[in-house]
Amino acid sequence: MTPFLDEQKPTNMSMFTDLYELTMCASYLDNNMFQPATFDLFVRRLPENRGYLLFAGLEQALHYLENIEFTGEHLAYLRKQGFSQNFIKYLEDFEFTGDVWAMPEGTIAFPCEPLIRVTAPIIEAQLVETFLLNTVNLQTMIATKASRVVQAARGKPVVEFGLRREHGIDAGMKVARASYIAGCQGTSNVLAGMEHDIPVFGTMAHSFVMAFENEVDAFRAFVKTFPDKSTLLIDTYNDLAGAENAAVVAKELEAKGHKLGGVRLDSGDLTEISKKVRQLLNERGLNHMSIFASGDLDEYKIQELLNKGSKIDAFGVGTRMGTSSDRPYVDVIYKLCETQNPNGEFAPIMKLSEGKVTLPGRKQVYRYEDKEGSYVKDVIALADERLDQEPLLIQVMEDGKRTYEIPTLNEVRSKAKENLSRLPEQYKKLTDPQVYPVELSKMLEDLANKLTQKLMNH
Amino acid sequence: MTPFLDEQKPTNMSMFTDLYELTMCASYLDNNMFQPATFDLFVRRLPENRGYLLFAGLEQALHYLENIEFTGEHLAYLRKQGFSQNFIKYLEDFEFTGDVWAMPEGTIAFPCEPLIRVTAPIIEAQLVETFLLNTVNLQTMIATKASRVVQAARGKPVVEFGLRREHGIDAGMKVARASYIAGCQGTSNVLAGMEHDIPVFGTMAHSFVMAFENEVDAFRAFVKTFPDKSTLLIDTYNDLAGAENAAVVAKELEAKGHKLGGVRLDSGDLTEISKKVRQLLNERGLNHMSIFASGDLDEYKIQELLNKGSKIDAFGVGTRMGTSSDRPYVDVIYKLCETQNPNGEFAPIMKLSEGKVTLPGRKQVYRYEDKEGSYVKDVIALADERLDQEPLLIQVMEDGKRTYEIPTLNEVRSKAKENLSRLPEQYKKLTDPQVYPVELSKMLEDLANKLTQKLMNH
Repeated sequence: MTPFLDEQKPTNMSMFTDLYELTMCASYLDNNMFQPATFDLFVRRLPENRGYLLFAGLEQALHYLENIEFTGEHLAYLRKQGFSQNFIKYLEDFEFTGDVWAMPEGTIAFPCEPLIRVTAPIIEAQLVETFLLNTVNLQTMIATKASRVVQAARGKPVVEFGLRREHGIDAGMKVARASYIAGCQGTSNVLAGMEHDIPVFGTMAHSFVMAFENEVDAFRAFVKTFPDKSTLLIDTYNDLAGAENAAVVAKELEAKGHKLGGVRLDSGDLTEISKKVRQLLNERGLNHMSIFASGDLDEYKIQELLNKGSKIDAFGVGTRMGTSSDRPYVDVIYKLCETQNPNGEFAPIMKLSEGKVTLPGRKQVYRYEDKEGSYVKDVIALADERLDQEPLLIQVMEDGKRTYEIPTLNEVRSKAKENLSRLPEQYKKLTDPQVYPVELSKMLEDLANKLTQKLMNH
Repeated sequence: MTPFLDEQKPTNMSMFTDLYELTMCASYLDNNMFQPATFDLFVRRLPENRGYLLFAGLEQALHYLENIEFTGEHLAYLRKQGFSQNFIKYLEDFEFTGDVWAMPEGTIAFPCEPLIRVTAPIIEAQLVETFLLNTVNLQTMIATKASRVVQAARGKPVVEFGLRREHGIDAGMKVARASYIAGCQGTSNVLAGMEHDIPVFGTMAHSFVMAFENEVDAFRAFVKTFPDKSTLLIDTYNDLAGAENAAVVAKELEAKGHKLGGVRLDSGDLTEISKKVRQLLNERGLNHMSIFASGDLDEYKIQELLNKGSKIDAFGVGTRMGTSSDRPYVDVIYKLCETQNPNGEFAPIMKLSEGKVTLPGRKQVYRYEDKEGSYVKDVIALADERLDQEPLLIQVMEDGKRTYEIPTLNEVRSKAKENLSRLPEQYKKLTDPQVYPVELSKMLEDLANKLTQKLMNH
């Protein structure tokens, strides 16, 4: 056995798939099914309290599609699992040759709207399902959650602090990325900072304070190293005594021409404590010092803190954002919507199972705005219709080659900010948001009705 | 910017850390603080409805500790972040030189019991915090959750099916690993199967059925490829009609000397449908065919299904287990419990913050059993006490070198099974389990009382 150890990451993600993708593909091959098919990747319904999705994950999806390759080790393993020599031979030469359309990352989206649309020989289009779902699920879930946290903070900076409880290494990296897209100022994750050029932030832990005989000694030791940007954690023993000690050290720094950045609160009644600490600091002429708060925060708690008049200048948000703890997944699915008949015609496909209806045919999404540029409604149409709006899905791959320049992370972040600013408030409420109108075009509706009739009579 | 793409996993995880670990370490260095310190990694409290933890993650933790190394690229980045040349120089030669004690993976554990105990120069012991928490949080959370699902299934096989909604690549791998430790039969994740030698399972998706003109054609096509181990998904259009079609294909296979494995249900009222499908199959002499069920399952739903007499032979459990969706994190923390005085004496350390009390000193955990070998209670004691039971923490590293042979995954899985079998039922109830007794030794209690007094008078 080769144990999967953290640094031995496989050089490609081709085997990062549910087995059933491979069993289906093996059977498609045996039955000579190479006809083109289209799959939509979309979210079936919004999680509770969410009024929109903030789409993220396309860069990693494209990178995956561009790099699928089955190695000798992969093929030997699959042979042992009982796959036929014929299928192994097929995989040996496998590359993804399809067309892909997608919303750019940072686009706001709604249920049933295709986020990624894959058209490829059915065996290829099927094979890529698991990875696409995995990467879009995580990043869209976190970008959506983090955008709510940023909104709740009303312009005050939010830093992503959840690394220790995010689900493993890749989650740590992608949560930092998706949170930054959604408007966080940065992350505590140093590796993400380095790899993605995201600003990194950090203060100190209680253990640092406890490693010294007295709190004030710990503070002095820390500012000796960082005289111009220290944030001191003041709740190890008692917040107000801690604030006093921080003020003492701030004054000592001032005498040497430096400024203490601020203090951090990590427990207790943050509203009451922040008010008292603010007053104490101001009384000592330390109005410039900021109060940073952390400790089990999420959008709901931040909203409550600010509603109660807490004197908090910035937020560190960890576990609840980094795991999307109130709903740690989105209902993202990947569904066949079109396949080619034996006679070469494209035939739209629809599923009718209870609560699991899908929309047939190759589709496009159009967004309508009012005169001020605010979003009014979306229309899902068939791909060969032309409505008088910018389509949201753009072509990102043609014949397996990327036709889309990956934007920088800051460009994606700007797009998200612009999209969010144009979504009216009623759809962004943190609890019970209004349902944003998503309509079907007349042609799509007619097609869906026709197929429903046909399926019911089947 | 070098984008962090999935296959470009860094060769070591040294930078996978919260920035504050590095800022604290930089300050320890500036203040010449190299004295040994001990940190406990433990879970503060159990998530709702959990009566125990199933510890997992040690293998990855040890691998991380053995391989910390800061590369030129790391150091250049940290220099740019404002760290001093002195600290960069320190990191250049950094290696972990500490002693580590831990519970073996697959051990049942309870709140406040050290799972991993690190003794090292404080600067080293602090630096490793984030990664240890990240890997233990994910794997212990999932092993615990999965063990509950396996228990609910009452001996019927459970397969881990959650890859598409697990949080990224590393989570996909570690969830498969931790679920297998907890007693799952295998996973849908092919890469995890290959890397960890875990059995892989897969059937077919609705898209496969929909890619054919008729359901029965899809079934025939599939069994052509897998004549001896097919499980056919029968709910694409109508479960009972699907079961009829599966029965037709099963008879065709029989005529050729093959056997159809079973059918899979993925939606609807699984109890009612499974009973009807079982009856239909038995009426056709297909008693050997198994019924596999999936679709938003977790321990609570499986318990309910079996209580209602569902005729289900095996379960595929995905999102809710793979994200631990009712509680997607455990309260795992890493706390300083001992440091060395300037005069060379070890001084126990304790934290008193509201709801965040920690236990002082270097500790060991002892487990008591009754005559039948069932667990009765645990005692947390000081490390230099000797109680008349096997200690649970064993030494796994000495002076930075591993002193422990990593067990195989199947050995860990056996240990988990044995541990779980010895934990009495009342602590394993799926809802409102009894609280397992964890006591403090007299010496530890006296020490905690003494320090509490001292801190209160401080």
